[in-house]
Amino acid sequence: MELSTIYAPIQKDLAKVEDRLMSVRKVDFSHLSELLDYSLKGDGKRIRPALTLLSGKFYDYNLDYLLPMATAVEVMHTATLVHDDAIDNSSVRRGRPTVNKLWSAEQAVLLGDYLFAEAGALTATTQNLRAIKLFADTLKTISSGELNQAFNAFNLEQGRQQYFQRVAKKTAALFSMATESGAVLSQAPEESIQILIKYSYNLGIAFQIVDDILDFIGTEEELGKPIGSDLAQGTLTLPSILLLEHYPEDNPVKRLFNNRDKRDEIKLAIELVRNSPIIQECYQVASDFCAKARRDLKLLPDNASRQSLIKLADYITHRKK
Amino acid sequence: MELSTIYAPIQKDLAKVEDRLMSVRKVDFSHLSELLDYSLKGDGKRIRPALTLLSGKFYDYNLDYLLPMATAVEVMHTATLVHDDAIDNSSVRRGRPTVNKLWSAEQAVLLGDYLFAEAGALTATTQNLRAIKLFADTLKTISSGELNQAFNAFNLEQGRQQYFQRVAKKTAALFSMATESGAVLSQAPEESIQILIKYSYNLGIAFQIVDDILDFIGTEEELGKPIGSDLAQGTLTLPSILLLEHYPEDNPVKRLFNNRDKRDEIKLAIELVRNSPIIQECYQVASDFCAKARRDLKLLPDNASRQSLIKLADYITHRKK
Repeated sequence: MELSTIYAPIQKDLAKVEDRLMSVRKVDFSHLSELLDYSLKGDGKRIRPALTLLSGKFYDYNLDYLLPMATAVEVMHTATLVHDDAIDNSSVRRGRPTVNKLWSAEQAVLLGDYLFAEAGALTATTQNLRAIKLFADTLKTISSGELNQAFNAFNLEQGRQQYFQRVAKKTAALFSMATESGAVLSQAPEESIQILIKYSYNLGIAFQIVDDILDFIGTEEELGKPIGSDLAQGTLTLPSILLLEHYPEDNPVKRLFNNRDKRDEIKLAIELVRNSPIIQECYQVASDFCAKARRDLKLLPDNASRQSLIKLADYITHRKK
Repeated sequence: MELSTIYAPIQKDLAKVEDRLMSVRKVDFSHLSELLDYSLKGDGKRIRPALTLLSGKFYDYNLDYLLPMATAVEVMHTATLVHDDAIDNSSVRRGRPTVNKLWSAEQAVLLGDYLFAEAGALTATTQNLRAIKLFADTLKTISSGELNQAFNAFNLEQGRQQYFQRVAKKTAALFSMATESGAVLSQAPEESIQILIKYSYNLGIAFQIVDDILDFIGTEEELGKPIGSDLAQGTLTLPSILLLEHYPEDNPVKRLFNNRDKRDEIKLAIELVRNSPIIQECYQVASDFCAKARRDLKLLPDNASRQSLIKLADYITHRKK
């Protein structure tokens, strides 16, 4: 299933989001304009703005509010990527040099700040106080989740629970914001809003699990970034947590975390994960979250967008990048 | 004139801002709580929240709105400092190790993000769309000003105009936001709002000029950070711009900017500035901005806060830290 098929009910409006993203770069300081252009130009999957638009389709689909909100969600996502890359000193993202690599970490941090502000300004244009509060609270949640990850770098004492909690904060929160804002801005009743929040919360966790699987089994070409980067940063994800569960005595993750110089262990960990049932188990966990995501959607009005949300939950576990 | 005397009309409420700042640290993630505690605990001058409260004193002084807004302004200021220090790799601020020094640049960036979000959340509690929009626009302006500074590091082709433009963005914008929000949230008429915006815009520029002077003539003890740090970062400020004007042929700033290894030139530049009329000229420029700041205040209702705003403009040029 192609994303373009899933996006069919909102394809036209997603193109308008793309236009809005390009308007963001129109500023009177040419260097900033260049940075905005580079970071917002996209071969991203645009899943988050799509979620906002799809969630808006069940009641009053008003683009005056939904377009700036969908744009805000993508701008906010971009800001977190720009800061993440600066923090991790990553060189490549989506097959292109990162902002910190092409310019500097300093400029990446300031660009990220500008993008957060732009996302806030776009959200403010909806004039909806719930959406505005949601925006600020979500950014608090995401940075707190990222801080948790940074704080626990190279800490072996983390199990599945800590992982799910962290993923809920650093990834699922923004997915939830995408659907909640779409529902709120289309005057959805509270019951429907809650269904859409629950949907994207579970979808977001599944999405992150698959991201973390791909960091073990993907190829640099497909992913547009090096594999094994989570372990290199000292971040335990579901595959490495299962590896620790399967081989509790001695294993390459333990050796790496206890001695960060042992970078060769990353390769061994990847091989061990690939040649074990771990990946299958991880996909099963992701599928369970997707099933949970789909579960209550039938309580929403039946329309093409509902079908798209269901298909999106299938797409998540099958994607290769 | 002591700040405490100037703050007299709002001293009690400024203490409440301090309480609110301490409430911000109450989060369920103890490491984040520690970071918040450290960064918000204060021997800062609290000029910005004071401006919000003083500006609120002319019409409907409603603390339900003014307290969260004043807190938001200080939290936002703290966020910019935390990011600045991380970017500049500074070790000391207000006589204490910086967050990036004590923890890491990574954690400083994420803490700054969290603080920006917290400031946004606090602003949202005012439920005032103008204040909310102002918050987002101000953060855009500040980060654009900081980016301008980063982009022009070690660029000798910058004169007074570029300097004033940059300072307007990176410093005066937040001062303006402080008074504008205070005026807006106290239902001030548009004419009074504009007077208070103009006041703090000029005050903010004067404040930054004095900051930049102190980086040449202060002592590390008084400032709580090393002197000469602007030149070390390749940032031209008013004293160094005047030095370039006074000694256009050959001078230590030129030598430093053309060859960054020549760190000894910083000492020479500081001596040259100190032993010339440059400092006097810079103070004159700052005084002119303060005079501009004071000019229209007489059009506001006459009360103790108006006197405080006038005195604050005097304080700015006489402060030693």
